[in-house]
Amino acid sequence: MSETIQLRIPGPTPLPEAVREATGRQMINHRGPEFARILSETVAGVRALLQTTHDVLLLSCSGSGGMEAAVVNLCSPGDEVIAAHAGVFGERFAAIADAYGLTIHHVSAPDGEALDPARIGEAFAAHPRAKTLFLTHNESSTGVTHDLRAIAETAHHHGALIAADCITSTAALNVPLDEWGIDVAVSASQKAWMAPPGLAMVAVSPRAWERTQTAALPRFYFDFAKYREAQAKGQTPATPTLPTLTGLHRALQMLIAEGLPAIIARHRAAAETCRADIGDLAERELRLFADPAHASDTITAVALPEGMDAARLLARLRDEYGVILAGGLGRQAGTIIRIGHLGHVTAADMDAVGAALRAVLETSPPGPLSFAAGQRRGGATSGR
Amino acid sequence: MSETIQLRIPGPTPLPEAVREATGRQMINHRGPEFARILSETVAGVRALLQTTHDVLLLSCSGSGGMEAAVVNLCSPGDEVIAAHAGVFGERFAAIADAYGLTIHHVSAPDGEALDPARIGEAFAAHPRAKTLFLTHNESSTGVTHDLRAIAETAHHHGALIAADCITSTAALNVPLDEWGIDVAVSASQKAWMAPPGLAMVAVSPRAWERTQTAALPRFYFDFAKYREAQAKGQTPATPTLPTLTGLHRALQMLIAEGLPAIIARHRAAAETCRADIGDLAERELRLFADPAHASDTITAVALPEGMDAARLLARLRDEYGVILAGGLGRQAGTIIRIGHLGHVTAADMDAVGAALRAVLETSPPGPLSFAAGQRRGGATSGR
Repeated sequence: MSETIQLRIPGPTPLPEAVREATGRQMINHRGPEFARILSETVAGVRALLQTTHDVLLLSCSGSGGMEAAVVNLCSPGDEVIAAHAGVFGERFAAIADAYGLTIHHVSAPDGEALDPARIGEAFAAHPRAKTLFLTHNESSTGVTHDLRAIAETAHHHGALIAADCITSTAALNVPLDEWGIDVAVSASQKAWMAPPGLAMVAVSPRAWERTQTAALPRFYFDFAKYREAQAKGQTPATPTLPTLTGLHRALQMLIAEGLPAIIARHRAAAETCRADIGDLAERELRLFADPAHASDTITAVALPEGMDAARLLARLRDEYGVILAGGLGRQAGTIIRIGHLGHVTAADMDAVGAALRAVLETSPPGPLSFAAGQRRGGATSGR
Repeated sequence: MSETIQLRIPGPTPLPEAVREATGRQMINHRGPEFARILSETVAGVRALLQTTHDVLLLSCSGSGGMEAAVVNLCSPGDEVIAAHAGVFGERFAAIADAYGLTIHHVSAPDGEALDPARIGEAFAAHPRAKTLFLTHNESSTGVTHDLRAIAETAHHHGALIAADCITSTAALNVPLDEWGIDVAVSASQKAWMAPPGLAMVAVSPRAWERTQTAALPRFYFDFAKYREAQAKGQTPATPTLPTLTGLHRALQMLIAEGLPAIIARHRAAAETCRADIGDLAERELRLFADPAHASDTITAVALPEGMDAARLLARLRDEYGVILAGGLGRQAGTIIRIGHLGHVTAADMDAVGAALRAVLETSPPGPLSFAAGQRRGGATSGR
């Protein structure tokens, strides 16, 4: 097995050495002055990369916890909401709203395609009581980036707030939250931020704060107001995930030194390399899963030929080449693989991934991993 | 300032070097086989130290998140519950239940005193519809350990479930969850476990699982069933706090090698040393805050003479001696200080803390830190 591990899943992403060191530092008093400084600098750094002047709250939970926080701080029992989705993570947002008993009007697109802003507009027109839109900006289950700017315009045109899961888009793609008018944006430390998992970062607009005043869904741990109040004193409402915070703090120093334009260009270059490498494997019947017009610059989903054993492919990449990719989720399990190119990544890393993929496919012995016509299944919908 | 930092707050607690290394290790795939092994070994280790054969779930949040999980998985809208408390953390449990609109019958004791199991029995008798009891076992705001065994017997006698915040008691005191019949017990990684913050560990009894079937409060991120289902597959429902998990995994190896009886004896020795050292400072008018019959073996609260500036005392301990203690919380702010002796701690550490405290008090120049009769305030209730 290769000595160099290429962890190229859609997150957690590899930590730079300096971030590892900061993550493993000794504990400090989370009510003391050093903590207050680290918290304040981290919030400032996140705010800069989110291109927002709004409040940024650091919640000790995964990104999914941040999505739940968006729901419970914006909505009241009985609310109607629009949930737009074209994959597992967008559907998760809807599932959270459903768990809280909200009435959900769904707008969906087929997996691999982008949401149509016009259809979201039609949903608002058909359901004028719906005043909140939930969606995932970059759908990492399919490798699609939706047109968040146009979708936000549509929501605002209908007088609604927009809460976006920007977990795998921020700090990698250009996501100017304030310019686009995103009311609640959720990110997570283990994605393009080059930090470990453990913190959700949530940006809250003044309009969203106003809504929280009347939003009556029950909340305690995820209550935005508690975080704002504590952060104003250099604290957090409960004990924060310190290793992730100190890791993120260090990673932000590196990211800010690099600068957002360079970060965006680096992700673009890695993504283009990844897509070109997969294109070069067309003779092996690998195929880019996402609509090319909306392909994500942070995650590439690759459709496998029918009959190819995804689990075995992933295991061989891991065990023989140290390349760790992700499988498909939900209804894509077994039929696609997913390559993460976000965070601490360059185009050269993607060439290494592409080379490993080619090597595995070319050395594949006869058997379930290799494509054979007799192993074709009936149709695309017969997958797991 | 001292080169050796004594972080002696009630948590986060200091990390042993090996735990720091494990906390700062490189990221891994949270859907891969190595993760499944680490998760499984960690759950087994926590279960052993919790003296339980029940399910143990690892939630990526602080201990407060684990407390909220207990509420939302056990209760339904309109439920009556008993909340027993004698300090800030017990009151937090009640506040969470209140945020979810439950009807709460309070049983309280004065700060520094222990809850009377008989009074909890009276509350159940007076409110026969209440079928759930919430309480904090070791009240770290006052340094009191309640009689959890007797309280659990009382709850069961009345056919109720008991959910206990055992955040600062487990892995330090003897808390045999199964023997005492604790239905939901919540702990947190950054306390006696010698690991960083970021994970709540929750033990769920079969009776509690049965209750979750009908418990109708809304939940998604904190849904016990999702964690059980994912853990059975070696996974977590959302991306877990990896640095805390790998740190806790390593710490558990050390704790299990030490053995629970030795861990309990070590905490007892540290606590007795701490209390003796404070007793020796009686001439400085320092006083143990907790009822001696119920003094905690993990946290000691020290009442300061009136007129002494707690903030200045804590700052001098920190800046001159590298000894970091905690202040009072809520209504005790400014009138007590709190010493944590849990986790990676020995009696010798407490002697170091006691020596620093004595040195600061003996070198205190005239002024607000020193006690002066003219600075006495009117009475105990006039504190902040």
